[in-house]
Amino acid sequence: MTNSPTPITPQRGPTDHDVRDQIVQAATEYFGRYGYEKTTVSDLAKAIGFSKAYIYKFFDSKQAIGEVICGNRLQMIMTTVDDAIHSVPSAPEKLRRMFRALVDAGSYLFFHDRKLYDIAATSASEAWPSLQAYENYLKTLVLQIIREGREAGDFERKTPLDEAVNAIYLVMRPYVNPLLLQHNLDHATEATGHLSSLILRSLAP
Amino acid sequence: MTNSPTPITPQRGPTDHDVRDQIVQAATEYFGRYGYEKTTVSDLAKAIGFSKAYIYKFFDSKQAIGEVICGNRLQMIMTTVDDAIHSVPSAPEKLRRMFRALVDAGSYLFFHDRKLYDIAATSASEAWPSLQAYENYLKTLVLQIIREGREAGDFERKTPLDEAVNAIYLVMRPYVNPLLLQHNLDHATEATGHLSSLILRSLAP
Repeated sequence: MTNSPTPITPQRGPTDHDVRDQIVQAATEYFGRYGYEKTTVSDLAKAIGFSKAYIYKFFDSKQAIGEVICGNRLQMIMTTVDDAIHSVPSAPEKLRRMFRALVDAGSYLFFHDRKLYDIAATSASEAWPSLQAYENYLKTLVLQIIREGREAGDFERKTPLDEAVNAIYLVMRPYVNPLLLQHNLDHATEATGHLSSLILRSLAP
Repeated sequence: MTNSPTPITPQRGPTDHDVRDQIVQAATEYFGRYGYEKTTVSDLAKAIGFSKAYIYKFFDSKQAIGEVICGNRLQMIMTTVDDAIHSVPSAPEKLRRMFRALVDAGSYLFFHDRKLYDIAATSASEAWPSLQAYENYLKTLVLQIIREGREAGDFERKTPLDEAVNAIYLVMRPYVNPLLLQHNLDHATEATGHLSSLILRSLAP
């Protein structure tokens, strides 16, 4: 936010990439404080000290900025989940930890960064690409864990793989989709513990 | 609330019970057309041709009227579910039919009586007694079916009964709770089919 948005000598000025980052960073702070829904690109431009037209050079719309912010947050959650299951040797335990890490990360965002949580809820309600990518990541992760468990003999192999993955994802969805999690936060930890156990019983060979 | 609202000839005038019914019936139509949230007791009184004060003799608040309407609707769904499973001999099939009947009834209300559906969603969001009674009915039904299946040897008996019931209820909840169903209507029939199968796999002896 310190550099001029119209450098005379491009070599010395910020690159497009830097400006984009700068806008995203400022928007993350601004939306995080004042909320995404009620903020306009004009508000944001004023706060950053850029012209609205200049911001539109980098982002087509407010949603395009929200997309990047949301994508960054979801990426952080995905990294947390990957870390949580990385060195876990058994597929059943991986599934349990994956579910717990997702609920913990989502609840944390809700209680500590409510305004940014709301962007994620909007992304879920409007099916933004960032949320679709997140859902695909989760389904792929479930698929990998089920495959691993089947190969190790921990899980049954009769149910078609895609049906098993889809059903497990549907059980998790109310707690991992930001639009739904907010209605399911009461006793979420206990609930997801019971649901993990139910899922694992359904996978028993 | 048992006294007459000052009829001169009580024998000929409407009984309190009749007046209550009349108000509920008119309110069901009125809320069904104009919505519950945006309607006041004054609007309703005008539409029925009663004074606001007269309505308050029978109902403490708008919510008290909404409660009765919501309770009536949920009672209809419970009757439908009871009918759907009444003559089904096996517990696994009962569970499957129960889930399907609930989703069908909820979806029907959403698509055909959206304004009344919204009252049910409000009742879920504000935890009205009518919705709590509905949730208790559903949990009790799941409990009865699990017990029946365990006695017949169709279901495993290792998992504590209350944990099994709670987890199954949680799997169903996104499709039977009116506040959540509206976010889960896409492919609800396919989803609940897969979820029924997952629940039944989790119950396998």
